[in-house]
Amino acid sequence: MNLLLLLDTDFISPNHVRLSGRRLEHVRDIHRLQVGDSLKVGMLGGYSGNGEIHRLDGEYLELNVTLDCPPPPKLPLTLILALPRPKVLNRVLASATSLGVARIFLVNAWKVEKSYWKSPRLEEGNLLHQRILGLEQARDTMLPELQTRRLLRPFVEDELPGLIRDTLPLMAHPGSGIPCPRAVEGPVTLTIGPEGGFLPQEVELFGRAGFQAVELGPRILRVETAVAALVSRLY
Amino acid sequence: MNLLLLLDTDFISPNHVRLSGRRLEHVRDIHRLQVGDSLKVGMLGGYSGNGEIHRLDGEYLELNVTLDCPPPPKLPLTLILALPRPKVLNRVLASATSLGVARIFLVNAWKVEKSYWKSPRLEEGNLLHQRILGLEQARDTMLPELQTRRLLRPFVEDELPGLIRDTLPLMAHPGSGIPCPRAVEGPVTLTIGPEGGFLPQEVELFGRAGFQAVELGPRILRVETAVAALVSRLY
Repeated sequence: MNLLLLLDTDFISPNHVRLSGRRLEHVRDIHRLQVGDSLKVGMLGGYSGNGEIHRLDGEYLELNVTLDCPPPPKLPLTLILALPRPKVLNRVLASATSLGVARIFLVNAWKVEKSYWKSPRLEEGNLLHQRILGLEQARDTMLPELQTRRLLRPFVEDELPGLIRDTLPLMAHPGSGIPCPRAVEGPVTLTIGPEGGFLPQEVELFGRAGFQAVELGPRILRVETAVAALVSRLY
Repeated sequence: MNLLLLLDTDFISPNHVRLSGRRLEHVRDIHRLQVGDSLKVGMLGGYSGNGEIHRLDGEYLELNVTLDCPPPPKLPLTLILALPRPKVLNRVLASATSLGVARIFLVNAWKVEKSYWKSPRLEEGNLLHQRILGLEQARDTMLPELQTRRLLRPFVEDELPGLIRDTLPLMAHPGSGIPCPRAVEGPVTLTIGPEGGFLPQEVELFGRAGFQAVELGPRILRVETAVAALVSRLY
């Protein structure tokens, strides 16, 4: 946690917050801070700044906060991700958030196991928590937008044409032979398939929607490695 | 598993292997292949190619193999990594291997907890297994070299000058203000610090050894995200 994220409900007066639970424990047991110490704080959806600890015990962490610094800019990147295995989902959400991805769609694909869609990790609370972990890691305060789409074809055919307008639509596809572009300037919509890849029909579906298949090289990467490698290459 | 890795001891005649355990179970239960099906195989430290299944039951997986394809080239990259938390270590080793890193040093730093050095994940068998998972992911057959160094100062002062000769020595250091270079041509030695970063004295130690501090931007990334993002940026 490189930044302590604050919510509206944490404020007990205009510059004064009171926290308990995970955040209290982290500051006390991991950072091992004490009354009088300072740490970086940020308002979810707002500015970041400094927090000075004036109470820290088993019950509450209380801070006087000054919020004067805008969050780092987001990347103009929409990520369309075939729903990964539940264990991987958490890591990918936190990682993509920390990298500054602006918007994430979790979509279905033939090789996404049906059981993944029933995982408790897809509950709203967890999807929010993983993104908050990513924000805290990267000292960001702006949540990336996150949506899920259980039906791939209507999403690609009906919704994507509007979403990709004025963006570069790319699909990570090992074996395509076309290198992923470097250091692009503008917005990108990037699709990454499931473990085992998209079916040829799914590749064609994205192709008809205007997506260019690209690759990083001959190596097939796990989704969490591929997300970081592709985002870093693009921006 | 995008490639089934074979060892010398798997061969029961020149082009014929017999496997059991994890690899048998993976081919049968995850890939759901049957007698007559083919899959990509590779000899650890050698060529890759094709394997045709002629026996697959509860006891053995037997394949006729043809090995005619060289492995993908390694990146001319040595990674010096402050020993991560045990849980993260496994993922980082597999991920760095899948990216094609040629050599990895796991080193100590002030913020590496002493207990990490006692983790069973540092046993030879696990260090090998994680790299094998990375090779299987990326369809590679050449293990990256892996060494551990419990004492940072003598490693940096005595050993690194020889190791970094004819390489570009870089240290990932958020806040340095110098962007990590893109698409370098030659060999790089890249140092990545622990969670919480190197101490200023440790940064100076690497600096005196010739390492340039670089960053990817204002965002602080987790080590597994940083490794993929930096490697992808460099090559």
